[in-house]
Amino acid sequence: MSVTRRPLVFAIVAAAGAGVRFGGCVRKPLVKLGRDPILVHTVRRLASVSCIREMLIVVNPQDESLVRRKWLPRLRKYRVSDIVVGGRSRQESVKHGLARVPLSADLVLVHDAVRPLVRKGVILATIRAAQRVGGAILAAPVKATLKRVGPNGLIAGTVPREDLWSAQTPQVFRRSLLAAAYEKAERRAFRVTDDAGLLERLGHPVAVVEGSEENIKITTREDLTIAKALLAAQGNS
Amino acid sequence: MSVTRRPLVFAIVAAAGAGVRFGGCVRKPLVKLGRDPILVHTVRRLASVSCIREMLIVVNPQDESLVRRKWLPRLRKYRVSDIVVGGRSRQESVKHGLARVPLSADLVLVHDAVRPLVRKGVILATIRAAQRVGGAILAAPVKATLKRVGPNGLIAGTVPREDLWSAQTPQVFRRSLLAAAYEKAERRAFRVTDDAGLLERLGHPVAVVEGSEENIKITTREDLTIAKALLAAQGNS
Repeated sequence: MSVTRRPLVFAIVAAAGAGVRFGGCVRKPLVKLGRDPILVHTVRRLASVSCIREMLIVVNPQDESLVRRKWLPRLRKYRVSDIVVGGRSRQESVKHGLARVPLSADLVLVHDAVRPLVRKGVILATIRAAQRVGGAILAAPVKATLKRVGPNGLIAGTVPREDLWSAQTPQVFRRSLLAAAYEKAERRAFRVTDDAGLLERLGHPVAVVEGSEENIKITTREDLTIAKALLAAQGNS
Repeated sequence: MSVTRRPLVFAIVAAAGAGVRFGGCVRKPLVKLGRDPILVHTVRRLASVSCIREMLIVVNPQDESLVRRKWLPRLRKYRVSDIVVGGRSRQESVKHGLARVPLSADLVLVHDAVRPLVRKGVILATIRAAQRVGGAILAAPVKATLKRVGPNGLIAGTVPREDLWSAQTPQVFRRSLLAAAYEKAERRAFRVTDDAGLLERLGHPVAVVEGSEENIKITTREDLTIAKALLAAQGNS
């Protein structure tokens, strides 16, 4: 057992999206939330955690030149070191980011660019859990009653929700573990909706850290309205 | 097959809550959302659907006199006919309301008092589906990645979400069907988290009508902040 020390964390901010725009002509991470684009809020929150040494932002190929020219210079003060071009899926995009993380990193933290309301305390808690277990995700307990619905549009049953959690980001992993998982995923053509899914498939333990529903993922115009209200309630803008 | 006609719908507005207050000294349905208590917004939305002939509000015993004295007179114009005292669980509260619905009702619509953002269009769609099938609920497809978490706090697996929906209200049922379901539930001591659950247990089909996440259930201070923002975005207050 090594003495617990401050881990060296590299962050991958997943901003490549699916190219879906909502309303305007700007991709979601670049939509304004108050004074700044969503992406800037997100990066600023991550930068508040000092053990995050460096950040890479994975962007849609179509946004690369804009982000590189306009935003990267302003984001350097938040320890964003570079822009990486994403792939056709989220999984592929994170893989592109991961390829650029130095081998000296202890942990890799993956975070959705469109979750700008994440708080310092839960980022730290997720990092600590990952240090202990090898992998950890932020998640919130499911409060809703969940129904399984058949192809006929009728309820097929109620799903027990007692042990169900809704996965969020950050998701934090030992760098070597995540890199190995991505390699195996590629060889075996796994498809997953989050990074924890890869470790699960390989039988590695992943811890769950309790977050709140406040850490919303902005995917619709309504979500943007909600994020503005929550941000204002947090005393920021 | 009878010719489709305008159904006679009675609404039960479940406002008895669990007695949980958030912050202040007023129970949730009576907390202000803009100018009016949440309950008033909810009742007004339901009243916009003309086939809802009458509404009963099921309240916490401790709120009865306040609601009867202060709010019932103002709610009569929205076709609220009376206040009913709730029981120790949501299921028991709805049962108390159901006992007061006249036998002449075709359909019973159950709605959470703390879902004030429900829209007329989805209320109508749920009523129509219930007319056709016998029971129908409003629900939204699950977008999050769901994890089953073991007692050790580690992820036990990812739950396939393709056919998962998050149940909301209104939930609408043929009156006779719901009354029979509540009777059987009592004899067999079923416990469910929503009314559809009772019909499912008895093998009756229940249709799912697609709603949006906008129809939030206000259970925390954060939810109230979100509801205010969504209401403002809808152009109301």
